[in-house]
Amino acid sequence: MRAACFLPALCLSLLQVGAPPGAAARYTADWASLDARPLPPWFDEAKVGIFVHWGVFSVPGFGRFSEWFWCWWKQKRAAEVDFMKKYYPPGFEYADFAHEFRAEFFDADNWAEIFKASGARYVVFTSKHHEGFTNWPSPTSWNWNSMDVGPHRDLVGELAAAIRKKSLHFGLYHSLYEWFNPLFLADQASGFKTQNFVAEKALPELMDLVKTYKPDLIWSDGDWEATDAYWNSTQFLAWLYNDSPIKDVVVTNDRWGKGCYCKHGGYYNCADRYTPGELPDHKWEKCQSIDTLSWGYRRNMKLPEVMDLPAIIKDMVYVVAMGGNYLLNIGPMSDGMIAPVFEERLRGLGVWLGINGEAIYSSKPWRVQKENSTLPVWYTARNNTVYAIFLDWPSKQSLQLPAPKMSGATTVTLLDNPNVSLKWAPLTPTAGLVVMMPLMPASPGNAWCLKLEGVV
Amino acid sequence: MRAACFLPALCLSLLQVGAPPGAAARYTADWASLDARPLPPWFDEAKVGIFVHWGVFSVPGFGRFSEWFWCWWKQKRAAEVDFMKKYYPPGFEYADFAHEFRAEFFDADNWAEIFKASGARYVVFTSKHHEGFTNWPSPTSWNWNSMDVGPHRDLVGELAAAIRKKSLHFGLYHSLYEWFNPLFLADQASGFKTQNFVAEKALPELMDLVKTYKPDLIWSDGDWEATDAYWNSTQFLAWLYNDSPIKDVVVTNDRWGKGCYCKHGGYYNCADRYTPGELPDHKWEKCQSIDTLSWGYRRNMKLPEVMDLPAIIKDMVYVVAMGGNYLLNIGPMSDGMIAPVFEERLRGLGVWLGINGEAIYSSKPWRVQKENSTLPVWYTARNNTVYAIFLDWPSKQSLQLPAPKMSGATTVTLLDNPNVSLKWAPLTPTAGLVVMMPLMPASPGNAWCLKLEGVV
Amino acid sequence: MRAACFLPALCLSLLQVGAPPGAAARYTADWASLDARPLPPWFDEAKVGIFVHWGVFSVPGFGRFSEWFWCWWKQKRAAEVDFMKKYYPPGFEYADFAHEFRAEFFDADNWAEIFKASGARYVVFTSKHHEGFTNWPSPTSWNWNSMDVGPHRDLVGELAAAIRKKSLHFGLYHSLYEWFNPLFLADQASGFKTQNFVAEKALPELMDLVKTYKPDLIWSDGDWEATDAYWNSTQFLAWLYNDSPIKDVVVTNDRWGKGCYCKHGGYYNCADRYTPGELPDHKWEKCQSIDTLSWGYRRNMKLPEVMDLPAIIKDMVYVVAMGGNYLLNIGPMSDGMIAPVFEERLRGLGVWLGINGEAIYSSKPWRVQKENSTLPVWYTARNNTVYAIFLDWPSKQSLQLPAPKMSGATTVTLLDNPNVSLKWAPLTPTAGLVVMMPLMPASPGNAWCLKLEGVV
Amino acid sequence: MRAACFLPALCLSLLQVGAPPGAAARYTADWASLDARPLPPWFDEAKVGIFVHWGVFSVPGFGRFSEWFWCWWKQKRAAEVDFMKKYYPPGFEYADFAHEFRAEFFDADNWAEIFKASGARYVVFTSKHHEGFTNWPSPTSWNWNSMDVGPHRDLVGELAAAIRKKSLHFGLYHSLYEWFNPLFLADQASGFKTQNFVAEKALPELMDLVKTYKPDLIWSDGDWEATDAYWNSTQFLAWLYNDSPIKDVVVTNDRWGKGCYCKHGGYYNCADRYTPGELPDHKWEKCQSIDTLSWGYRRNMKLPEVMDLPAIIKDMVYVVAMGGNYLLNIGPMSDGMIAPVFEERLRGLGVWLGINGEAIYSSKPWRVQKENSTLPVWYTARNNTVYAIFLDWPSKQSLQLPAPKMSGATTVTLLDNPNVSLKWAPLTPTAGLVVMMPLMPASPGNAWCLKLEGVV
Repeated sequence: MRAACFLPALCLSLLQVGAPPGAAARYTADWASLDARPLPPWFDEAKVGIFVHWGVFSVPGFGRFSEWFWCWWKQKRAAEVDFMKKYYPPGFEYADFAHEFRAEFFDADNWAEIFKASGARYVVFTSKHHEGFTNWPSPTSWNWNSMDVGPHRDLVGELAAAIRKKSLHFGLYHSLYEWFNPLFLADQASGFKTQNFVAEKALPELMDLVKTYKPDLIWSDGDWEATDAYWNSTQFLAWLYNDSPIKDVVVTNDRWGKGCYCKHGGYYNCADRYTPGELPDHKWEKCQSIDTLSWGYRRNMKLPEVMDLPAIIKDMVYVVAMGGNYLLNIGPMSDGMIAPVFEERLRGLGVWLGINGEAIYSSKPWRVQKENSTLPVWYTARNNTVYAIFLDWPSKQSLQLPAPKMSGATTVTLLDNPNVSLKWAPLTPTAGLVVMMPLMPASPGNAWCLKLEGVV
Repeated sequence: MRAACFLPALCLSLLQVGAPPGAAARYTADWASLDARPLPPWFDEAKVGIFVHWGVFSVPGFGRFSEWFWCWWKQKRAAEVDFMKKYYPPGFEYADFAHEFRAEFFDADNWAEIFKASGARYVVFTSKHHEGFTNWPSPTSWNWNSMDVGPHRDLVGELAAAIRKKSLHFGLYHSLYEWFNPLFLADQASGFKTQNFVAEKALPELMDLVKTYKPDLIWSDGDWEATDAYWNSTQFLAWLYNDSPIKDVVVTNDRWGKGCYCKHGGYYNCADRYTPGELPDHKWEKCQSIDTLSWGYRRNMKLPEVMDLPAIIKDMVYVVAMGGNYLLNIGPMSDGMIAPVFEERLRGLGVWLGINGEAIYSSKPWRVQKENSTLPVWYTARNNTVYAIFLDWPSKQSLQLPAPKMSGATTVTLLDNPNVSLKWAPLTPTAGLVVMMPLMPASPGNAWCLKLEGVV
Repeated sequence: MRAACFLPALCLSLLQVGAPPGAAARYTADWASLDARPLPPWFDEAKVGIFVHWGVFSVPGFGRFSEWFWCWWKQKRAAEVDFMKKYYPPGFEYADFAHEFRAEFFDADNWAEIFKASGARYVVFTSKHHEGFTNWPSPTSWNWNSMDVGPHRDLVGELAAAIRKKSLHFGLYHSLYEWFNPLFLADQASGFKTQNFVAEKALPELMDLVKTYKPDLIWSDGDWEATDAYWNSTQFLAWLYNDSPIKDVVVTNDRWGKGCYCKHGGYYNCADRYTPGELPDHKWEKCQSIDTLSWGYRRNMKLPEVMDLPAIIKDMVYVVAMGGNYLLNIGPMSDGMIAPVFEERLRGLGVWLGINGEAIYSSKPWRVQKENSTLPVWYTARNNTVYAIFLDWPSKQSLQLPAPKMSGATTVTLLDNPNVSLKWAPLTPTAGLVVMMPLMPASPGNAWCLKLEGVV
Repeated sequence: MRAACFLPALCLSLLQVGAPPGAAARYTADWASLDARPLPPWFDEAKVGIFVHWGVFSVPGFGRFSEWFWCWWKQKRAAEVDFMKKYYPPGFEYADFAHEFRAEFFDADNWAEIFKASGARYVVFTSKHHEGFTNWPSPTSWNWNSMDVGPHRDLVGELAAAIRKKSLHFGLYHSLYEWFNPLFLADQASGFKTQNFVAEKALPELMDLVKTYKPDLIWSDGDWEATDAYWNSTQFLAWLYNDSPIKDVVVTNDRWGKGCYCKHGGYYNCADRYTPGELPDHKWEKCQSIDTLSWGYRRNMKLPEVMDLPAIIKDMVYVVAMGGNYLLNIGPMSDGMIAPVFEERLRGLGVWLGINGEAIYSSKPWRVQKENSTLPVWYTARNNTVYAIFLDWPSKQSLQLPAPKMSGATTVTLLDNPNVSLKWAPLTPTAGLVVMMPLMPASPGNAWCLKLEGVV
């Protein structure tokens, strides 16, 4: 019998990792080579992104980390077990929810308009979460995808097109593992000695996503149960960086196998909501959900569980000052609407960035990240300009900034009112300023920014 | 990179077609070798089987050949298009029906009791029809199988166990192709040059069925769009006959690729409802549905469309006289009930076979299959006994049988009353009998059988 | 305030029971007067009717007497409680079933064709059962009727029209009480001292039915909890017999209040499936369901629970010989189909009545109803002809009939073959015949009838 | 026949409008008497209420004025017709939505906590809207109420109890007419000469509400198609004011029949969102929905359609300054959640009222309602104190108030900081102040209030 016939097309393409004749230097399928790839610059410049968690989990839309509903339920977490007992007949299974995922109000252009208005520069969308349901018509996920059941639409495709019309970068979240996929479970039972799930599901889908939607970013997840050897991650990344249609622009994160995160890949996410205490020496990103209890929508969300705008801005400022990107998450409803309370946060953030964006976009960490004299101040820098961001208005109308060293040409302005130079005085002979503050302008986020020129 | 890792387990097992050291003669993966395998004798002895079509198609349960509902609809057949327009919202897709396939009354033991009572000796159940929905928890059909959605039960497993408790043979229908499986469609688009669907879906599932349920019969179907080379049929059969756990007992049919039927494989089904005019020289089987318009259940079935018992018995007698097996089909309802009108036909057939079964089971075609003097008579034989079956009672109380040649020891009895020898006279000096008939006994199927001993 | 304004229109019409000037003699609202009304003759002539139980109860279609599902469930009968627990979410109430009562295949003309083919001469349809759901758009049952929810059709109206096209009589079953109607429950709680339910629901609906559909028969039920005084039955019947549009043709039964049945009203139903031992002196009717366990459809019905045709014919013959009418019940499925097993019984009955109907329709009880010499024989008579019906074929080809007294002109024929006079001999010098039987003709119902002319 | 038996209990109770012996002076069933009743004082003191629109309409939750969905659809408004065509099967009727009204997250105590936190002093809840679905188990709306279908709970009862635990007043909205109730349609067709709907549905339900839930306020609606004579409004109100259990506390509005509004009844609502230009001489109330496009929830609501907090406060201040009450509406979701964006508005309003409430609650219009010197200012008064509310902060740190006449004892404070007396100067020798403003305090609603003591 002809053995070759059983090799899926995938195998063939992946095998071509060797350099074609005459090609430029190529990445090899090992971390030393892959980690050396420079991060495409758009990512660090963008600074702010929107994360979108949408899937079958949006239908029950229930409980802490609602996107894990299936898993909690099957693991007998009380809230989910009670919920199912109370509202669904015995025998109702998770897959039955897909039928009710209708997306009837989903308007990708409306989403894109809101995301643009938020001031974000990139969007990361769940192409597939751990439940395995694909938000695009994946050929290897037949009848468990958004085209065959539920919305009966290519959600990834519609959103990709709309996001690009708004000149935002489009990224895809992709979970390597699928909790209950029998192919995965069989590999798992083998101690990950077999790789059928990787060969037949995970990698074909990743490659299909890359070829079909050409994302600017791949936000890998669900890697932690097995090593990158199991996932064939280095082979995939070598292909991605050498031969894929997005090889020059694509950014990836660091979730490519047990032990990889904070260590290998593109930028680092490290653990969820990682918040470094000191300036990291590798580009990183913090993702944070507006609903503090969940990434996916919770129908039973209440206001006190929702971040308000000042909290979001404070969090973002901290992250950017520390050299990170800020990926702010929303979970749309199963009908395709974005809850107005989320829309309000996003639009509010956009108003703030409209005023203060020059302190954020394309900024770099300054030599000092934060200090606290009159009140806490975070610094960013851009070329020769330093930005000092503060989240309370000083009660005494003056603000001390000990770190900057002034020069003869030092000028200080408030970004809310850039045409007016503020008076300032030296704090000490060698460093530091005391800035005379104007009347407080109303701020959408209770945060303001001083622009310091001619300081070091 | 290690290419081997991408070879699914399937490939490995299939590659072991070569003979292990010291083994007996083995079948090779070519038709010459495979076709030479003798048919396990249980099949010809059984003569009567029950065919069961059950699946997601049982939910709409509508229209001619309701099991093809999806295909008719997508091909724009007016009845199905109208049905969907009239009763379902726009955007409702076939996969949405799975949710309503509940099987709440499915009791495999009750089915087995009815099948046993019908006198059948084997049962063939649709493990998967062309819709691709598997009636068992197939690992390669995640969330499109009866365990993940709809019944949330292993229908194949439950039925297999119940059938075997009743000492009936258990067979599985399996469709090779799946109309709308994207892997299949991609292979089809390549002119069947790629075989991803075979490698990732069709063969893994066939082998899973064999290993898990150990069926006595594989009723292959859905082969006709591609050659057996595409389906890897000969490799599969060689494995099945050499190495599978059912290698000694399993019977297969002839649908293994375009051009195969009536030519290769085990017994022949040839085309649906094939009815040979002359005695075939290869074991064959006719399948026939009690609902003359459909294999799957039709909720809108009306009585005139249903075969009555005499029609069934007439059909079966013809087939057995011609050396065939008779596979009588029912389509259960989506809730798991067998319509009482079907149950009545099956029990009626069982009553008739209780009286006349010795003319059917383990019989062989006689040297004459049928003649028509007083009225049409079909012959079967068993060892030295000849059976003459007639489907009307002779109006004049005598029946002429020209073919049998009598001897001094010739006796004639009616199977309804085996203790009474009937008077007979020679029809001609050399051959033929005129039998004096008794008063007509009521027959459940309007058919009776004379047993002729001591004739040739 | 003007009290009159609160009197519903009903009150006004019912108050006009007094005779209009110049009218003929009128019935008064008391039993002595009402019971004296002669029964319109069509009813006794018709002899055979079809009873149809259809409603929301057809949706669960479960358990013994499925039409009482709601009541069994609320009374905690284990089977229904388990069924609801197993297949429906907590909080699912009976009214939620109405949504799934779709009637999508309901074709009144097809029903009428089947009923006509059964040989029945009248049809009685549940306009409203104890659940209170009306199968017509009752103005006093808003959103709990077949026009507002479920089928969204006037089921009574469609069926009435189709039945009349076939020249059958159309009757309506109507339940006076409604188990859970809060108005009824309040009256009940008052010891039936208040009559709000009667004034606002029961009588308005009965009158609406009469005026809108002009039924030939009102099959009253659900009367037993309260007296006819509570139900205002005599007032209603006086109006029905004096002033309604169906006053000349309408037939009613005897369920008009506690203590009424077998005593007052039109013909007598007495208790369900009442089977008198002696010839009653008042016209009566037996209703009997083909499904021996239920009037409403049971999705989980199995064949052994279904009457076969001989049992039906035997039952009908008994009833007609005893002067009764036979009302044979079927419960259609919620989608509007009549199960083929029921259709088969009805068509089989029609074939039998096609041969033997002259012994049934318009017949009268003879001076002897039944005797048992050779085997049991039932008698009916019509003018001077006597009919002897027997349900087994005599094994010895002769049949003794002791009761008839022959004359010189006595002739005996079998209705299956009316052109052949049978030989007979006197049994005793003064009475009785011994009839020489022909060869047994196949009978659809295993019952045959001798026609005796010139006997007394 | 006994006519009395047809008189529902209602008739009897309503007939007792005449004074019992020895009773105090009673209202008679005419407007002259009824309009003379003094309004119970709690209502004018409360000033702020929450209006809640919840019902079956919350399920589709679609389109402008979603609570009218049924009517728009049946009147062929394009948006609703398209919506039904696109998402529901043909034949799906409005009543079918009730099945999906689940209220699974409805927690009356949570609602009450939010309403309390808003600073409102009363809540008005839709007991029944024009669709006729009752949010309590009305005996005359069987199977079209929240106990029999959908939530299977007494929504009115649960909310009433929770609201009272928070010491808020509880009121009920009640629609007299029901668009499609057949009893109403019949009365309508008679030119409202018959009153069956009033006698059998509208008044029994109103009286049931009064007796069961003892609301402090009845917000009548749906009156406009017929005169108060048809509705028997004056008889009902006479009973309500004389004999009902809430006769001393109940407040009603003015929608009691065509031509009544702004003329008869309790306080005046006049037309929806009535906004008088001059100080009215009768107590009035403005109701206003936070969702500017709908009273009922719209699943497709977007942020720009939602009032922000400053707009709400501005509207409320205007109404209170003009002597009105402000009834702010929200439409909960069908699952019982209050959208967080609404919750945020309500809690924001509560924060503002926590600071500025003394200018609102129990206030009276001052001799001047509004003036506009530095910027627009609204006045209210309470005893001898005058309040000046302004919705922008003066850019020049001083504010002119021409109307107040100062005295020696005049003091001015800002309610945000009541311990600090502000400096002021006379504007003219005889009247008016110029107030020196402090630094702007952040305000949740961009509105502030000066308290002027010792002015006239």
